Amino acid sequence: MKTNKHITKVREWMRGNDVDAVIVTNPANQFYLSGFKALIYSRPILLIIEGKDTAFIIPGLEEKHARADAEVDKLYVYHEYPEGVKGAEDPTELLKNHLAAKHSKGSKIAFDLAYASAALTESIRATGFELVDATEQISKMRYIKDQYEIELMEEAGRLVGLAVEATLRAAAPGVTELEVDAKGNAVLFSETVKKHPNATLDLTVMTPSGNVRTVMPHVFSNTRKLQEGDVVIHSRQVGFNGYRAELERTFIVGEASDIQRKAFEAARKAQEAALEVIKPGIAAKEVDLVARKVLEREGFAKYAIHRVGHAIGVFSHEEPYLRFDSSLQLEEGMVFCIEPGIYIPEVGGFRHSDTVIITADGYRFITDFPRDLESLTKY
Amino acid sequence: MKTNKHITKVREWMRGNDVDAVIVTNPANQFYLSGFKALIYSRPILLIIEGKDTAFIIPGLEEKHARADAEVDKLYVYHEYPEGVKGAEDPTELLKNHLAAKHSKGSKIAFDLAYASAALTESIRATGFELVDATEQISKMRYIKDQYEIELMEEAGRLVGLAVEATLRAAAPGVTELEVDAKGNAVLFSETVKKHPNATLDLTVMTPSGNVRTVMPHVFSNTRKLQEGDVVIHSRQVGFNGYRAELERTFIVGEASDIQRKAFEAARKAQEAALEVIKPGIAAKEVDLVARKVLEREGFAKYAIHRVGHAIGVFSHEEPYLRFDSSLQLEEGMVFCIEPGIYIPEVGGFRHSDTVIITADGYRFITDFPRDLESLTKY
Repeated sequence: MKTNKHITKVREWMRGNDVDAVIVTNPANQFYLSGFKALIYSRPILLIIEGKDTAFIIPGLEEKHARADAEVDKLYVYHEYPEGVKGAEDPTELLKNHLAAKHSKGSKIAFDLAYASAALTESIRATGFELVDATEQISKMRYIKDQYEIELMEEAGRLVGLAVEATLRAAAPGVTELEVDAKGNAVLFSETVKKHPNATLDLTVMTPSGNVRTVMPHVFSNTRKLQEGDVVIHSRQVGFNGYRAELERTFIVGEASDIQRKAFEAARKAQEAALEVIKPGIAAKEVDLVARKVLEREGFAKYAIHRVGHAIGVFSHEEPYLRFDSSLQLEEGMVFCIEPGIYIPEVGGFRHSDTVIITADGYRFITDFPRDLESLTKY
Repeated sequence: MKTNKHITKVREWMRGNDVDAVIVTNPANQFYLSGFKALIYSRPILLIIEGKDTAFIIPGLEEKHARADAEVDKLYVYHEYPEGVKGAEDPTELLKNHLAAKHSKGSKIAFDLAYASAALTESIRATGFELVDATEQISKMRYIKDQYEIELMEEAGRLVGLAVEATLRAAAPGVTELEVDAKGNAVLFSETVKKHPNATLDLTVMTPSGNVRTVMPHVFSNTRKLQEGDVVIHSRQVGFNGYRAELERTFIVGEASDIQRKAFEAARKAQEAALEVIKPGIAAKEVDLVARKVLEREGFAKYAIHRVGHAIGVFSHEEPYLRFDSSLQLEEGMVFCIEPGIYIPEVGGFRHSDTVIITADGYRFITDFPRDLESLTKY
């Protein structure tokens, strides 16, 4: 019986709730619980956790990959070539057969229902099982990072800083959003290669520029060329062996106008204010509130259209969220991206993001990089 | 009332099946039907199609983006800042309210159930609606590409060819998988920038190398350095303004061994055989079968662990699949990636992939690039 700390915790929850099996469908949850992460396009992967056993249902082309990485007792493999076919060759059928053989009708089977497809859960319910939701339980387990996870995130933080620095150095009039992204990527690759002989990187990067594109918080980089006077939001995450850090910087190409400078300073001060209060015991909404107060004082509150931050770990945006309506109390070991943003029509968007870990008496930066306009402009 | 050809087709299906509304949850389906594609991390987006109206339920930070790109009549925006709050601020609540106001209990509401989360569909069912599955209908609509889509895919095909060429030129002993990927990316960016002033690119690239990593068909590139004698599978997709083309080449770093040469030739001939028979009217399984016959003749059938191909369009792997058990007849306008692969323990993986469009009397390449070992080795 293979297990690990995370699976042990799922089992405690199962015992407390009379749950016979948990079926995990979300890829980030699967990686968190088993160490196995696959590229999933059209072939579903399911993780089964029971009181004594764990298993994956996987497509044939992931068999070797799963045998190498997945910490589970058993693999059910479905095939798409005639020689491989042994019976059920469909992931849902394999799951149905497995559950029918091991659990009596009426047993409680949990899924991460916020991610599991309705088609899958319906067909399991139809065979006579009671469905239970494990979404919140697994999500909450992911709140507090352990030492192993923190070390990976700290290295991700160091790497993302190098990439942001390279991108900012490359930013100049006439260079496109995609090209500045590529400069940062290249440095990231060469540094990772130098230090880590067998590492996996995940890259997320976008660099909207100008007073139209930066007003949209999430847009892919495109072939727009930077221009003198542009505001730019360079946004990057690096995943290092599966664990992520986020670093984002707003800067001006050349000289900032008065309104750009005012908006930049407001967003920067809002981040500073949020960081000043962050520590164990404070409510999530308090962190959001202090940042909002700054923006209100500066006259930009109505442009602050998103929460002040989110947790990060195996996925890019995780719970808990630092929202105006969340009373959740922060705890030591949680990792957050602090990113108050304002998006002003005709003027542009302004947002820094840093990743921090909550410590016993405050926080520690996982990413650290200059935040003031002058330092960010000299590149 | 905003509409387009794709939505008109959904409405025809709705009328024929007494469906009052279709709720589209899959991002690729949403883009296909509305022209709007967002980065979705933790904030759900829902597309609603009814007899006369279309609407999106979106988070506040996507409002400007959706107003710019989404061809829909109405936007429901949910907010995460106190000033924005107007009532329901949760996507599921907004959907419930919308459906309750416009449709009587017992109405048929369709979802793309293979993607919709069980949590969402359960809560809609609980309010008294009958759930219908629209997965297959939308999937089938996406089978046949129109002229606009084909033009985008052909440009994606040209771009992916340039990127593969640059990557292959960079491949040499001592260079890492991630670095050869980056060379291709850089060329892709600069060419796109030159030709298309406002284009969006999606990149998927992986380059497993050596006789262990290439045996796993889907693994992310890492920091492994290429070595003399390595087999390498360079796999790339480019999405150009949302439409994709795939090109993959297997090559040897330096001189091929006898077994490498034999396996390479078997995979290449299998692809050639599949391409020879592909045309309208042939069954999907026939294409798979002719490729398998070649591999059987060469003694490699048991290593051919995946189907011979898949469709491609707005998503990386789409239906129809060219599988041994599919009787579906190919039609003019379908676009497929043809990629028979073999994965031999201790020896390595061997797979080319080309993207082709089915024409009236056969096929036309969307990607075209040398396929023989000599041409691929001279880089």
